[in-house]
Amino acid sequence: MTHGAMQPFALTLDKFLDHAAKWHPDAEVVTAHGAGGSDRIGYAALRTRAQRVSGVLVDLGVARGDRVATLAWNTQAHVEAWYAIMGMGAVCHTLNPRLMASQLAAMLAQSEARVLIASADLAPLVQQILAQAPLVAHVLVIDGAAAGLRQPPRECSISALKPAIAAARDDVVWGDFDETAPSGLCFTSGTTGAPKGVTYTHRSSYLHTLRLLQADVIGLTAHDAVLAVVPMFHANAWGLPFAAPAVGAKLVLPGRHADGARLARLIVDEGVTVAVGVPTVWLGLLEHLEASGDVVPSLQRILVGGAPMPPALMERLERQLGVIVQTSWGMTELSPLGTAAASGDSGRDAALSGRPAVGVDLLLTDGEGRVLPEQRGVEGHLKVRGAAVVERYFGDGESATTDGWFDTGDLARIDACGNVTITGRAKDLIKSGGEWINPAEIEAIVAALPQVALVAVIGRADPKWGERPILVVETRGGDPIADDDLLEALRGRVAPWWIPDAVIRIPNMPLASTGKIDKMRLRSDYGQE
Amino acid sequence: MTHGAMQPFALTLDKFLDHAAKWHPDAEVVTAHGAGGSDRIGYAALRTRAQRVSGVLVDLGVARGDRVATLAWNTQAHVEAWYAIMGMGAVCHTLNPRLMASQLAAMLAQSEARVLIASADLAPLVQQILAQAPLVAHVLVIDGAAAGLRQPPRECSISALKPAIAAARDDVVWGDFDETAPSGLCFTSGTTGAPKGVTYTHRSSYLHTLRLLQADVIGLTAHDAVLAVVPMFHANAWGLPFAAPAVGAKLVLPGRHADGARLARLIVDEGVTVAVGVPTVWLGLLEHLEASGDVVPSLQRILVGGAPMPPALMERLERQLGVIVQTSWGMTELSPLGTAAASGDSGRDAALSGRPAVGVDLLLTDGEGRVLPEQRGVEGHLKVRGAAVVERYFGDGESATTDGWFDTGDLARIDACGNVTITGRAKDLIKSGGEWINPAEIEAIVAALPQVALVAVIGRADPKWGERPILVVETRGGDPIADDDLLEALRGRVAPWWIPDAVIRIPNMPLASTGKIDKMRLRSDYGQE
Repeated sequence: MTHGAMQPFALTLDKFLDHAAKWHPDAEVVTAHGAGGSDRIGYAALRTRAQRVSGVLVDLGVARGDRVATLAWNTQAHVEAWYAIMGMGAVCHTLNPRLMASQLAAMLAQSEARVLIASADLAPLVQQILAQAPLVAHVLVIDGAAAGLRQPPRECSISALKPAIAAARDDVVWGDFDETAPSGLCFTSGTTGAPKGVTYTHRSSYLHTLRLLQADVIGLTAHDAVLAVVPMFHANAWGLPFAAPAVGAKLVLPGRHADGARLARLIVDEGVTVAVGVPTVWLGLLEHLEASGDVVPSLQRILVGGAPMPPALMERLERQLGVIVQTSWGMTELSPLGTAAASGDSGRDAALSGRPAVGVDLLLTDGEGRVLPEQRGVEGHLKVRGAAVVERYFGDGESATTDGWFDTGDLARIDACGNVTITGRAKDLIKSGGEWINPAEIEAIVAALPQVALVAVIGRADPKWGERPILVVETRGGDPIADDDLLEALRGRVAPWWIPDAVIRIPNMPLASTGKIDKMRLRSDYGQE
Repeated sequence: MTHGAMQPFALTLDKFLDHAAKWHPDAEVVTAHGAGGSDRIGYAALRTRAQRVSGVLVDLGVARGDRVATLAWNTQAHVEAWYAIMGMGAVCHTLNPRLMASQLAAMLAQSEARVLIASADLAPLVQQILAQAPLVAHVLVIDGAAAGLRQPPRECSISALKPAIAAARDDVVWGDFDETAPSGLCFTSGTTGAPKGVTYTHRSSYLHTLRLLQADVIGLTAHDAVLAVVPMFHANAWGLPFAAPAVGAKLVLPGRHADGARLARLIVDEGVTVAVGVPTVWLGLLEHLEASGDVVPSLQRILVGGAPMPPALMERLERQLGVIVQTSWGMTELSPLGTAAASGDSGRDAALSGRPAVGVDLLLTDGEGRVLPEQRGVEGHLKVRGAAVVERYFGDGESATTDGWFDTGDLARIDACGNVTITGRAKDLIKSGGEWINPAEIEAIVAALPQVALVAVIGRADPKWGERPILVVETRGGDPIADDDLLEALRGRVAPWWIPDAVIRIPNMPLASTGKIDKMRLRSDYGQE
């Protein structure tokens, strides 16, 4: 007796573009210009170009497993670079242009990337990086000319990628490697510690894509046009550059600029049906539409994530645009999607981040890692496991998991229907007199005051209580508010001992590169006695 | 430099039920009674029962890799048996109750299954099988009592499964094996040769399920109720018992009977949104609804496959029921889905079987296996490859593929949009005077005559031409039609030399177990000079 067998089929990411090129050759990737026009290309032609980019990389000495860095916006050339790098088995190390050159150079020192593919309009930043990243030996400039860059005082070639593509070899074989090979590298934002590198594999991103494509998640079809405002330099642009070609959907890329007016034009011009981005982006769109009277009738759904969704914004988007807003939760370590609210769910709620689709599992524990017996209706420390969840950070010898679970650092509550609400960050918790205070609950109340722009509650060292909460606030210009009135809003809504001991006003709240409030900085500035 | 890693996560089928039990514990599996009522159970409770069935199997000596046979209809108990067998790493060998005992015994001899799980109402067939299948040592009866079965004159235990479940151990570990382990075994219908066993693996069926769940394929959601009329004894019921729990959809099972009246009641009672089955089933539903005046307002989509879809039936279903009909093409060797028409496609056409989703690839060759340079707009021999396509049949030492492609035996045409039309079976082609005649084209024309019930064109040996076509026909009672009139319908629509040399009338067309016309039998009866 011999069992039969099914065919070998490696889950490698090049297959998504191969599929699109063969079965949806004319479905488009569209990139908005800064100037107002758009570039467009079919998947078949894009695949041909991307394979030639692989040829350019091979000629620069890039081999399988080598890291190739990108520093670029959401554009066709960046998509081509992704597939060129990943298709040949190299590792795409995406760099966030909103970080400082010193931070990016430190990441490049870790990844040891010798080739950097960079957007022409980032030349000043690239110049600073090159001065601090001695391993980078080749810069390929996309989306513009290489003229803005000077060679640093060492061996380093600088050239535009576009002319090289026409002359490049087109015989680099894609995908002929194990599916567990690394495909991508992305460093965490570092808001809660030193940035850590997350290595995505072909298998993990392939399976993440199939999860994304489920009808209760993003559920793209060949008839969709998806607007990816989420940046390709962070957490795979939520996997959209994989998901769109996988089903032959049109992929609409905003380039560098994502203000409301440009997004509105792009949605109308390209018949965008599904749009994906952080909440603030959609506030910009909404305010533009309200001011201009423009409409976006093709738009059916907006998927938000990356930050809490303000309930009022969600309600305005759904009512005024007639779209369905799907909330979600994820993180770099999750590739990035953890949970998403299904478009068909009734009673969608901005505070709920939806359920996990099959392939992701969640667990709530107490602060010491003991599994909570209830799991539903209680708050706990959120642990996660699955095919697209980090096991070990880049350069680390040891596992980032305990008993197979990754600690997200988030606090969460799961309701009876399995919907997740993120209630705070474990690292932000304040221990006062042996009891925990959750700053997120205090911040939500103060943030709702009309005079408040941004607010953060942090712990300040206290000789008697260990820590005590203090309120750091950036108010809006105009209408002033007294310290007592800020605190008064909390009375009766949180326990009396949760009410902060002090109010600190600052003109500009420090933000990390992802737009989140930089609490590490606040703690360093204001956390001492 | 050490690459990071993502978590290990084996693609094993038990994870679908685990996910449903944890995140959709109260979503139901509903089974229709013959009597008119229904049984229902939530996924959490079903999982508990299924794991106890694993306990029963372990106590009977079943180990990983062992085949356990099932001979049953679409019922909750059959679903429990599937997960019990596959979850513990045994192999579920599904038997088709429409085959003869001798055929089933021959399959059991090949699979060497020692345990048979059988529906109580199939006792007479089981009794015949036991007489010819000496390796079967245990029969577990589901969906009824074991009283209808007598022990054969050898060691063989016969017992009802239901009472054993309550007493069974519940500690059998599920899923702790490699994802490439075999999970299922299904023999082909054998309409074109001896039945061959296709071994499904956990990985292949897991990936097939994720493909099915794409929005352009079946795209189930947690809000769907899916009616699986396609039998669990053939080709995994198109994967629905995996796909429904994977997303928390309600799974509605018709039991043994799938007449129009019962299906209509089930659709109404359970709020069925998506229904899946062969075309004739929906003709029965339509005729019942027309006669009774009943309506099925919850039904949104019908997925058909397994046989050509009559255009008039598709049009009636879409118009009268207000549903979308999705055509598809597949086969046992493909797990079974190959292509499906997307529900969002405009201009859906009964002749088109849709496009492949990512994970399946198609190739057209000539009769000698040479790749056709065009691939679009021409007819060719259809080859397929993918993660859920057979590589090697059960018990075979050699591959069933050539250059990585499996020959489906089908002839097909692919249009400019990538839509597949199956145009015939390669084995049915008739070679006359060195040129090929495609019987499917002739049959389609004759079948459209109102006097014709079933028609088949086969080749008859001919001393001059090698083969010549003859027409075998079963006419409808009542309105007679002359031989000349049957052939006259072809004039001007096929080449003159394609017109059959003879008409043979038979009262009952021989059908294979899947309902297809048994051309092997026809050739044996009428194919000689």
